[in-house]
Amino acid sequence: MKKYAIIVAGGSGTRMGASLPKQFLLLHDKPVLYYTLQTFLQAYDDLELILVLPVEYTDMGQEIIDAWFDKERIRITAGGDSRFQSVKNGLALVEEESVVFVHDGVRCLLSTALIHRCYETAVSSGTAIPVIPSKDSIRLLTEEGNNALDRNLVMQVQTPQTFHSKIILPAFQIDYKDKFTDEATVVEAYGIKLNLVEGEEENIKITRPLDLVLAAEILSARKQ
Amino acid sequence: MKKYAIIVAGGSGTRMGASLPKQFLLLHDKPVLYYTLQTFLQAYDDLELILVLPVEYTDMGQEIIDAWFDKERIRITAGGDSRFQSVKNGLALVEEESVVFVHDGVRCLLSTALIHRCYETAVSSGTAIPVIPSKDSIRLLTEEGNNALDRNLVMQVQTPQTFHSKIILPAFQIDYKDKFTDEATVVEAYGIKLNLVEGEEENIKITRPLDLVLAAEILSARKQ
Repeated sequence: MKKYAIIVAGGSGTRMGASLPKQFLLLHDKPVLYYTLQTFLQAYDDLELILVLPVEYTDMGQEIIDAWFDKERIRITAGGDSRFQSVKNGLALVEEESVVFVHDGVRCLLSTALIHRCYETAVSSGTAIPVIPSKDSIRLLTEEGNNALDRNLVMQVQTPQTFHSKIILPAFQIDYKDKFTDEATVVEAYGIKLNLVEGEEENIKITRPLDLVLAAEILSARKQ
Repeated sequence: MKKYAIIVAGGSGTRMGASLPKQFLLLHDKPVLYYTLQTFLQAYDDLELILVLPVEYTDMGQEIIDAWFDKERIRITAGGDSRFQSVKNGLALVEEESVVFVHDGVRCLLSTALIHRCYETAVSSGTAIPVIPSKDSIRLLTEEGNNALDRNLVMQVQTPQTFHSKIILPAFQIDYKDKFTDEATVVEAYGIKLNLVEGEEENIKITRPLDLVLAAEILSARKQ
């Protein structure tokens, strides 16, 4: 089936304390975003990328494409005020029945194996959400105080969150709500059951300067 | 009030793929454990340390103490088969009414400010559990599938978990249960309400080789 990957890099990265949004920071001499795009393009020959960027950085995104990639396979669109709106802008470019990946641009260390795993599950079951078990003890705040959750039941959610287009396109017609922290919550609000797939420990999200150090270390280990 | 800190370093650190348990690995030329002990000793002059180590590593622990610390303030005891038993062995050395900190030996980057915060809350309210808000979207496995938790209500639990001795000593007379992943769950099973205090982003637990790289980076940034 046809595949689209919406790469969400709409944030201006204020948490990094850097002048550039984090998706453009250099990792082993190439922008973070380079690795994300490259891994998706390698995963499937018939996959098209939709790159969602802050409007003031679309030119910089185009430079990355011109330098390293086949421009026929990547389109750029402008992000919105929220992640929900950014993804919605990306979904507007989905033209045919397909499997749609939605991925954080700053999760640049995912593997093609993870992309394949998400695809297979989304094809067979409509949805695929990668998760890893929580490493920490977790407490949930309640009205009366707080209580422990069974750590074995607590899952950290990653991306690419992957859906059949027949599910994600109508799901995103809903009005925005604060609880929509990812695409899974939107699709869940549309009444669809979510299938979890095994995520990856190294599929980290680069949000702090330290994460960039960690990512460089992971890349070095892979090259050895 | 008198203070004891039980530093739990009972694990043999198989996850690191290193020959040495992770608490002995070097971080800027000193063992991980050095930083943990040093921060607690600096926090309060009347604080005594109880260091819980695998029995085959008590000599190595003693070498660290001899090299850097006042041996009058630190005692070593052997760990048990579980964290619960290791903490119980440490608690056996608590001799007077006090505030008892229980801390992961491999969380070597905590601040004295965090120790003070935990102490103040434990003195006034009996318990103090440091937590930080979850950065990830979280799903909880259920019998029917899984569902999203409100991320604002999900807290990652850290240490030092801190208690009045009148609470933690009797609480640990309970029989061990699998759900006891930390001291908070033991004290909760004893029927005590837990007070949460603000933890620290940099209070990381060194469990993977990458965490050691991250810790070194944090230390370098602090030195600058």
